[in-house]
Amino acid sequence: MGEVGVDRPKGFLPMGDRTLIELSLNNLNKAGIEKIVIGTGHQSHWYQKLANKHSNLRCVHAPDYAVSNSMETLLCMHDQLNEDFVLLESDLLYSPKALEALLACPHPNVILAAALSNSHDAVFIQTDAQRNLVALSKEKLKLQPIYAELTGISRVSIPLYQAMCRAYLEKGDKQLHYEEAMQLVAQRIPVFVHKEEPLLWCEIDTNEHYRKAIETIWPRIRAETFSRGELPRNILLNPGPSTTSDGVKMAQVVADICPREQEFGALMHRVGEGLTSLVADTQDYGCVFFAASGTGAVEAAISSVAPHSSSLLIINNGAYGKRMCDIAACYGIAHVEHPSPTTEPLDLAELERRIRQHPEISHLAVVHNETTTGLLNNLEQICGLAKAHKLEVIVDAMSSYAAIPIHMPSLGIDYLCASSNKNIQGMAGVSFVICNRAALKKTNSIAPRSHYFHLYAQYHSQAQSGQMRFTPPVQALYALEQALIETKAEGVAQRYARYTKSWETLIAGLEKLGLDYQVAPEHHSKIITSVYLPPGVDFTAMHDFLYTKGFTIYPGKSSEATCFRIANIGSIDHHDITAFLAHLEEFLAMG
Amino acid sequence: MGEVGVDRPKGFLPMGDRTLIELSLNNLNKAGIEKIVIGTGHQSHWYQKLANKHSNLRCVHAPDYAVSNSMETLLCMHDQLNEDFVLLESDLLYSPKALEALLACPHPNVILAAALSNSHDAVFIQTDAQRNLVALSKEKLKLQPIYAELTGISRVSIPLYQAMCRAYLEKGDKQLHYEEAMQLVAQRIPVFVHKEEPLLWCEIDTNEHYRKAIETIWPRIRAETFSRGELPRNILLNPGPSTTSDGVKMAQVVADICPREQEFGALMHRVGEGLTSLVADTQDYGCVFFAASGTGAVEAAISSVAPHSSSLLIINNGAYGKRMCDIAACYGIAHVEHPSPTTEPLDLAELERRIRQHPEISHLAVVHNETTTGLLNNLEQICGLAKAHKLEVIVDAMSSYAAIPIHMPSLGIDYLCASSNKNIQGMAGVSFVICNRAALKKTNSIAPRSHYFHLYAQYHSQAQSGQMRFTPPVQALYALEQALIETKAEGVAQRYARYTKSWETLIAGLEKLGLDYQVAPEHHSKIITSVYLPPGVDFTAMHDFLYTKGFTIYPGKSSEATCFRIANIGSIDHHDITAFLAHLEEFLAMG
Repeated sequence: MGEVGVDRPKGFLPMGDRTLIELSLNNLNKAGIEKIVIGTGHQSHWYQKLANKHSNLRCVHAPDYAVSNSMETLLCMHDQLNEDFVLLESDLLYSPKALEALLACPHPNVILAAALSNSHDAVFIQTDAQRNLVALSKEKLKLQPIYAELTGISRVSIPLYQAMCRAYLEKGDKQLHYEEAMQLVAQRIPVFVHKEEPLLWCEIDTNEHYRKAIETIWPRIRAETFSRGELPRNILLNPGPSTTSDGVKMAQVVADICPREQEFGALMHRVGEGLTSLVADTQDYGCVFFAASGTGAVEAAISSVAPHSSSLLIINNGAYGKRMCDIAACYGIAHVEHPSPTTEPLDLAELERRIRQHPEISHLAVVHNETTTGLLNNLEQICGLAKAHKLEVIVDAMSSYAAIPIHMPSLGIDYLCASSNKNIQGMAGVSFVICNRAALKKTNSIAPRSHYFHLYAQYHSQAQSGQMRFTPPVQALYALEQALIETKAEGVAQRYARYTKSWETLIAGLEKLGLDYQVAPEHHSKIITSVYLPPGVDFTAMHDFLYTKGFTIYPGKSSEATCFRIANIGSIDHHDITAFLAHLEEFLAMG
Repeated sequence: MGEVGVDRPKGFLPMGDRTLIELSLNNLNKAGIEKIVIGTGHQSHWYQKLANKHSNLRCVHAPDYAVSNSMETLLCMHDQLNEDFVLLESDLLYSPKALEALLACPHPNVILAAALSNSHDAVFIQTDAQRNLVALSKEKLKLQPIYAELTGISRVSIPLYQAMCRAYLEKGDKQLHYEEAMQLVAQRIPVFVHKEEPLLWCEIDTNEHYRKAIETIWPRIRAETFSRGELPRNILLNPGPSTTSDGVKMAQVVADICPREQEFGALMHRVGEGLTSLVADTQDYGCVFFAASGTGAVEAAISSVAPHSSSLLIINNGAYGKRMCDIAACYGIAHVEHPSPTTEPLDLAELERRIRQHPEISHLAVVHNETTTGLLNNLEQICGLAKAHKLEVIVDAMSSYAAIPIHMPSLGIDYLCASSNKNIQGMAGVSFVICNRAALKKTNSIAPRSHYFHLYAQYHSQAQSGQMRFTPPVQALYALEQALIETKAEGVAQRYARYTKSWETLIAGLEKLGLDYQVAPEHHSKIITSVYLPPGVDFTAMHDFLYTKGFTIYPGKSSEATCFRIANIGSIDHHDITAFLAHLEEFLAMG
């Protein structure tokens, strides 16, 4: 079995984030099967360890396993087998549909069979006209005609089991497989062969089988599960990545494509125009993509547009304002920091004083919705002031874009930074700067400070060839297109109305629970709320309790108080907030 | 229908990269239905334009559409309807299974029905004991008992159609729907009701329906299609992103998670250790991730590890060596460029001379497999020389990592840069630097040049909190874990053997076709080949021909000659190369 399988029984081969046996136990559990007995042989301690973790699991060791076969193991289990049972081999990967089909079958004894797989280790089945078992063999020529292939999943009644045990003992052949014992008694006790088509399954005997299982069968079983709407829905109350729709999740699964193809260029163009159109006209504004987190877009804007000859004014009223200062510092960009309280609105007069004090300032950078506290900076006022002083404006709209309506031309915003995984409700991996084309073109003369994050070079590449300069995150861009389609179907204003309703539900619920929060409603983004942690409450305990219920809350980032944060963004609504509040109440009541 | 639907008929609502009607046409086509007639009313030019593009499509306009209903339209189509047909409404999104079930049904007249959907616009169906249609109604109370819900997909024989038309004309009610006409004649001509369960479908009458369709039903239909193995398989012969397995594609589809959760930290830890273990021990070496393309990892290494007080020697024998020089230049990093021919092995003596000439050099940077030409730099020799001169070594292993076996400790490599989407066969979006921990720790004292790409800060964050500093590309990391599992199941040496076999197949085929390539076999990476474009052959025409066959080739990057490139990486093998060569031969023969 190669590197992966040498040290473990086949049931413990990894399959995604679990093992083969764990997947099978999960399938059995979902099918309503409560008691599970595992017959063990070689390396039985692996199974014993597993059984120690699951109260419904028993192991029965077959002492003669090295010189016998599966029928001997099945015989050893007789003390545990006192009602009809499902019999499965341990090296099987199979769709949950297999058990559903088996259990839906009206016969007491059933072999689940499948269409011929062309596997070189297949066991073929011959039946009579009533589809009852006649014979089994690995050799095709011994059977006439072949009806189907054995999957290794059967349903066995106690009378059949007892007959199989008797036949085994009478024959006295330790090498007998359980399916051969079935064949020995099938003339007396009918064993129905149910062929399920199509059925996703495979047996794993060789490294080649294992590779087929992980590369092909397992993902198709997962897709089948997804198509049945069975992927767990988590409610993310962290400030992004946010909860996504099934549409965005599945949009990532596309045929492979080279991102330097025109087809992909057309996708990027559509997405860029669509993202721009949410905040500006596409004539005067364009979208520049980066394979990066949102911070990357901010670093691109700061490092690319600040001239070497002038200075950048940065409003800092939270962690994300400070981040812009840190970026400027790394690159040695001359900048003036304008500190302001994190929970109070900006004093516009003070800001104007600062601007007047520093005639070398050419650009102003501000965070729209400060994720630290949920404080919403007033863009009308700030951009108005910037315009009056002829400053170009960079807005970090990471936590407001696609939720709070913004119109760049009328506000006079030149650069707006956002990412794929917040209010646009896509997947993480893409960030972008929506740029005033005229302003951006002027930056071409600024000596580049970063190769990767050079805004103009990236813009130019997109415009000239429809390509990003470096490999784009292909699948995240497909997901972003889907997120954009979903955003347009909802509308940004309607999305903000949904978020607002969730926020109002949250605030009302917090008040009912006696919890207080930072930032007054009139200065609040209604997108993320920093809540004071009540005395005596342990954040981690609260987080972990809510996590098990499917809700993810977020630690605070306030330097002044002990808080936790709740973002009401993503593909969720006020019903989810109500459900969250009920769990929060439950936790707080536990003391 | 909101912003999306105001300007178009419902059939033209976007669904992924296509429209509702295109999806339906595709389903019909797959089900073997060749002739399609569309009855049009309002905004018929949309459909007429579509029909102009498809020779098997006809439009029939119902002039009275504004004052009539679907039965009038169906009547208007009588000249075109001269054999049994499938009748579909235009506002339907449905699984291909719907048509399969309908066509498999042995009855001449069939209504395809589904379980009750709770849609407020449902049409309910009552049947007799034989499951033949008795009555239809939007009002539940009018029917007793309700068996199922109308999907809007039916199979109609000519006798039934003629009877419906007669009944419509006799009744003289222009408002009649086709299903009401069916009901009028159902007592005389049995219409079987086939209920398909489960069935993914929905009708789109409102914006809410449309949102449900794009957010839930359409992705589940796509997952169903994927589970049936029906996603087209493209063979990418560009140098990454490479062809991926179904396993890697589907690994992106996970329940939403906040990447600051321990569960995600554990994933990053597993992946980091796994990636490191392919080239070094995890005790002395660690993996630092970035949300970026491969260039980002190179920029992180160059900008983070070059001390301000010494100089960096960069070997430049191709575009990717030059890229490292460009990065160093952006940051004002003192560096010495060592140019060398792009198709010939490096002259080691010359390199040593250069090192001796520049005692200020502390680090050496080299590309392992130069993607420009496929030239493989000899790491044993180069790193040996670096060691002898006590230089730290940065290797851009973008196009060699996970294919060509590399052992960092014995070679003396301190930093190795790679990405998620080349030979590791994952999705684009993650790049990483595998670092000698001792060397990396020393870089903590170097004043940061970039905030985003600061290698030590990122390492420290991962080590301390299990988190990346900025939002990671969550789904690309899940895909990377799957890619790693698949890589381990295959083994790096075996992967390189597979690539080599593909390369040998390619070279033999090229030679047979009389095509020549750059770089002699003994200096060749056997991963990407730069082939001389034969005189008179247009690259774009060749590319486009091969693209339609499912093969993506890549333009050349050689400054000396007109070439195209073929990478033999990814989830493909020599059979795919053989198929490619056959298409290439076909193209070249076309002259």
